[in-house]
Amino acid sequence: MDKDPDSNLWFEEPYTEGLRFHYRVKRYVAAKQTKFQYAEIIDLFAFGRTLFLDGKLQSAEIDEHIYHEMLVHPAMLMHPSPKNVLIMGGGEGATLREVLKYSVKRVYMVDIDEELVNMCKEYLPKWHDGSFDDERSIVLFQDARKFVEEYNGEPFDVVISDLTEPIEEGPAIYLFTREFYSTLKNKMSEDGVFVAQSGSAEYLYTEFISALSATLKQIFPHVLGYHDYVFSFQLNWAFLIASKKYSLNEQKQVMEKNFDIIKDKVEYFTPEYFFAKTVLPPYMKKSMREGRVITDKEPYVWKA
Amino acid sequence: MDKDPDSNLWFEEPYTEGLRFHYRVKRYVAAKQTKFQYAEIIDLFAFGRTLFLDGKLQSAEIDEHIYHEMLVHPAMLMHPSPKNVLIMGGGEGATLREVLKYSVKRVYMVDIDEELVNMCKEYLPKWHDGSFDDERSIVLFQDARKFVEEYNGEPFDVVISDLTEPIEEGPAIYLFTREFYSTLKNKMSEDGVFVAQSGSAEYLYTEFISALSATLKQIFPHVLGYHDYVFSFQLNWAFLIASKKYSLNEQKQVMEKNFDIIKDKVEYFTPEYFFAKTVLPPYMKKSMREGRVITDKEPYVWKA
Amino acid sequence: MDKDPDSNLWFEEPYTEGLRFHYRVKRYVAAKQTKFQYAEIIDLFAFGRTLFLDGKLQSAEIDEHIYHEMLVHPAMLMHPSPKNVLIMGGGEGATLREVLKYSVKRVYMVDIDEELVNMCKEYLPKWHDGSFDDERSIVLFQDARKFVEEYNGEPFDVVISDLTEPIEEGPAIYLFTREFYSTLKNKMSEDGVFVAQSGSAEYLYTEFISALSATLKQIFPHVLGYHDYVFSFQLNWAFLIASKKYSLNEQKQVMEKNFDIIKDKVEYFTPEYFFAKTVLPPYMKKSMREGRVITDKEPYVWKA
Amino acid sequence: MDKDPDSNLWFEEPYTEGLRFHYRVKRYVAAKQTKFQYAEIIDLFAFGRTLFLDGKLQSAEIDEHIYHEMLVHPAMLMHPSPKNVLIMGGGEGATLREVLKYSVKRVYMVDIDEELVNMCKEYLPKWHDGSFDDERSIVLFQDARKFVEEYNGEPFDVVISDLTEPIEEGPAIYLFTREFYSTLKNKMSEDGVFVAQSGSAEYLYTEFISALSATLKQIFPHVLGYHDYVFSFQLNWAFLIASKKYSLNEQKQVMEKNFDIIKDKVEYFTPEYFFAKTVLPPYMKKSMREGRVITDKEPYVWKA
Repeated sequence: MDKDPDSNLWFEEPYTEGLRFHYRVKRYVAAKQTKFQYAEIIDLFAFGRTLFLDGKLQSAEIDEHIYHEMLVHPAMLMHPSPKNVLIMGGGEGATLREVLKYSVKRVYMVDIDEELVNMCKEYLPKWHDGSFDDERSIVLFQDARKFVEEYNGEPFDVVISDLTEPIEEGPAIYLFTREFYSTLKNKMSEDGVFVAQSGSAEYLYTEFISALSATLKQIFPHVLGYHDYVFSFQLNWAFLIASKKYSLNEQKQVMEKNFDIIKDKVEYFTPEYFFAKTVLPPYMKKSMREGRVITDKEPYVWKA
Repeated sequence: MDKDPDSNLWFEEPYTEGLRFHYRVKRYVAAKQTKFQYAEIIDLFAFGRTLFLDGKLQSAEIDEHIYHEMLVHPAMLMHPSPKNVLIMGGGEGATLREVLKYSVKRVYMVDIDEELVNMCKEYLPKWHDGSFDDERSIVLFQDARKFVEEYNGEPFDVVISDLTEPIEEGPAIYLFTREFYSTLKNKMSEDGVFVAQSGSAEYLYTEFISALSATLKQIFPHVLGYHDYVFSFQLNWAFLIASKKYSLNEQKQVMEKNFDIIKDKVEYFTPEYFFAKTVLPPYMKKSMREGRVITDKEPYVWKA
Repeated sequence: MDKDPDSNLWFEEPYTEGLRFHYRVKRYVAAKQTKFQYAEIIDLFAFGRTLFLDGKLQSAEIDEHIYHEMLVHPAMLMHPSPKNVLIMGGGEGATLREVLKYSVKRVYMVDIDEELVNMCKEYLPKWHDGSFDDERSIVLFQDARKFVEEYNGEPFDVVISDLTEPIEEGPAIYLFTREFYSTLKNKMSEDGVFVAQSGSAEYLYTEFISALSATLKQIFPHVLGYHDYVFSFQLNWAFLIASKKYSLNEQKQVMEKNFDIIKDKVEYFTPEYFFAKTVLPPYMKKSMREGRVITDKEPYVWKA
Repeated sequence: MDKDPDSNLWFEEPYTEGLRFHYRVKRYVAAKQTKFQYAEIIDLFAFGRTLFLDGKLQSAEIDEHIYHEMLVHPAMLMHPSPKNVLIMGGGEGATLREVLKYSVKRVYMVDIDEELVNMCKEYLPKWHDGSFDDERSIVLFQDARKFVEEYNGEPFDVVISDLTEPIEEGPAIYLFTREFYSTLKNKMSEDGVFVAQSGSAEYLYTEFISALSATLKQIFPHVLGYHDYVFSFQLNWAFLIASKKYSLNEQKQVMEKNFDIIKDKVEYFTPEYFFAKTVLPPYMKKSMREGRVITDKEPYVWKA
């Protein structure tokens, strides 16, 4: 079913009303309407194997490592010794893969969409790379909010929010509210660290990150944004890291020391590069001072 | 001739064989086959007024200030007191606009394409913003290489290379060679600074910046790369700065002090942000150590 | 403003949810939101100069003569001696042009959209070809229904309905109803002939022609469908001809005899070819026996 | 793998440099680079299951019966009693299906591309509808020219050329030449009838049909063109019928009488409709008087 470079099959991603990305398709691998979303796995000439959810590009072979390394390592390295970790979302298994590079005791991965995870298991082996079978992994298919509310095990050292944006009627809407973060904080250890992928940090499209930043600041004493450009997203991407105890500056040395643990296991991340990425573009900096707080009563609903 | 948001007119930019950008057109403003290139000025819903050369997006209303501020201010601020400046290319007049924010004595802008500059004068007023009429501006329509070779006026303190990439049979091919840079260096003052827009810094597409970097290093003692994401380019963009005398670190304080001069005249640039952007992504850093030297005999020809 | 064959400007016409036509644009000539519709005149590589209304292709340089000859000549030749003619719609002036090839006394052209007609006058000279200036032409800008209702001049020998399809809230909705046709019939001479462009005769899209046919049959004793393929429409097109007195078979000889009058003035039409086009594809024939009657109370609203 | 109506997967068919058709894809069913061509089977929202060869639409669920009935029945009905039939090409099996509706003794189907036929067997059951398993069918995978040259069995009563257009270096180039038709004629019975699908009959694109017509006229005493619009082709399609003995007019009564045999087995074809389709558009009529003869030395090569 492979196609030559002149393939006439295209996948169209409408980014806004005025801008569309067209990807030439090498092979349309698999598609499924799961209970929660429409998942497609497609081999693109531009980016290699690529996962789309509801028509939006999620992660691509060519640079998923950039996204996943930049999501996971800052939080893991900011904690002096993470043992118990929670991943919310993260269906492809690549976030899990990065976490397992540390000598953790246990990693919970809670993703609501079992059908999606099964697709990823079958079609994205480079992403999970066996991590689902690691004996330290506990993979649960349920609403992450319910899981956190009912959780009474060992406190989490690191929590990673690798969720899709909160689109209308999607399951993620109540996973970005002040109330939820308050509950979550109580299930974290004294020096717990939280990180969230925070959507596009695009010029003029910073509403979500500014709201999310304002919300986290109500709960955590230390909140910091960083960003990086991900080629296959064709966008500057934002992340927010929040800590119960440490400021990033305090942990700089810890981070640099601990980096040795994973130095040879990463392709892209370095502490130096990460610190540079905490210097935000002026418009992003400004927008992070202006957001409104997201609550259960007034959740944030993503505008396409 | 304005069009509603449902406009069915699209401009297609094929970025590679496998990736196309489609921009919805609000108004197709003007087009001209000049002696050197096909120039189109189009109002896009996504980016506002936009200039395309030979079908490739050059600069867009929404964020041309990001590109032009990041191109001009690092070099201008690295020199303690720039008086005599040369811009090669820069047809839109926005590079000139940024340079004129300093108390310079004279700015030469040498662009080969008079027809293009006339189009920009007429249709891109926000770009040049009167800079063509500033009495310090000397705008010349000729080959920049010839101009430099024959120039015997006051040495240049800052030289800005705002040229399109060296596409085959294009006029820019011999403006990126070791021989040319050697000549250029001789026309610069003892503490002269050179900066060049250096094309896409995209993951896997770093061949040009690595060759350009290798070439400049043969001529200048200090060469430094930096990058920034420009939304309308949908790409991470690369710049190279080269200095006859100062290293960037030596000039950090000068830069921060002089920044006061233009602080209130810029929208985006800050020294802090710029310094962060000199920390390159690992793949870019690596590629900058590997380039081949560009010469008149073996010029670099851009591969679309 | 001309563009080379590699032009990256495209006009997209979504024919249905599942089928889009993409036309490469040579020159975007003019556009105007008139009081009634969005009119665009575009030079296409495929079809030459082309008129679009609300994004739908109306008529193209390459084959407007096919459409206009097939619309006008059957009705004009079915009447033994047409003197007084009414055109409803027909903004481009080409229907008028074809009618004026006969020795008529007077042609009313009633089009609601003066701004559109002015655009056509300026940009579509091949279409009207001076016909607006012919002293036999009376061009009125008003609702055709009101015009017909208030008309008390000499009866019309031939009436040509060259209207766009009755889209929602468009002005044409009440120009396809039984009540209107009843009024119209009373303003026609004893042997008056009526013809209407009747939209796509496409396989599976025959609802409009079947309803229109059923409606006309309530008013006129003789109703006949014919069709032809128009390349630039990329569709089989339908027409309905209705007569107060003559059946087509009775008039065959008249038609062949009168054809001599215009034989040297047409490019495409011949009686022989037209007769062949009255033999309808089986699905179209069938659908014409099944339509519902269109009334003022239940007007037909075109589904895109 | 089914997709909702908002599917973002599109198949692009560039018809000319200036015109592209975009089909929304419901399901990308199968694709294969056979020894001879790139075959894709795709479920389209607009046309249902559809076969593409080298990116060009060949036949679609929605109206393959129009094409195949119009190809097969005129020739079969023009012969008073066809017993021995040859199909050249016809990979989908639908031409075979139509031929088997008559009480023939034997049908040879000679298609060079076994891999394609196997794909059709698996994925296009509505097309062949069991016809490959009919005991009267003899399906051979070889070059049709060689087969005809070496054939010394019972003469063919009807020969159907259901080949793709003779594209450069394609296997069909020498199946449209005077020399081949001369050989073929000798293998046909005294009253043998030949029919060929003859490509687009589009306005301004009539070169192939005019050459093919000129070539057949060198060999057969009676040659007749007919055409029909096929919705999924979005084009007027041309056919040429040639007979060793009968003119169409002589056979009209035979055709009408024999039609009873298959009347209840066809959906679209009627003799009356077919006769109407032998009246050609003026431009096509004209072009059929002007073609050059295709020979082995100067074969016709299709221009995309």
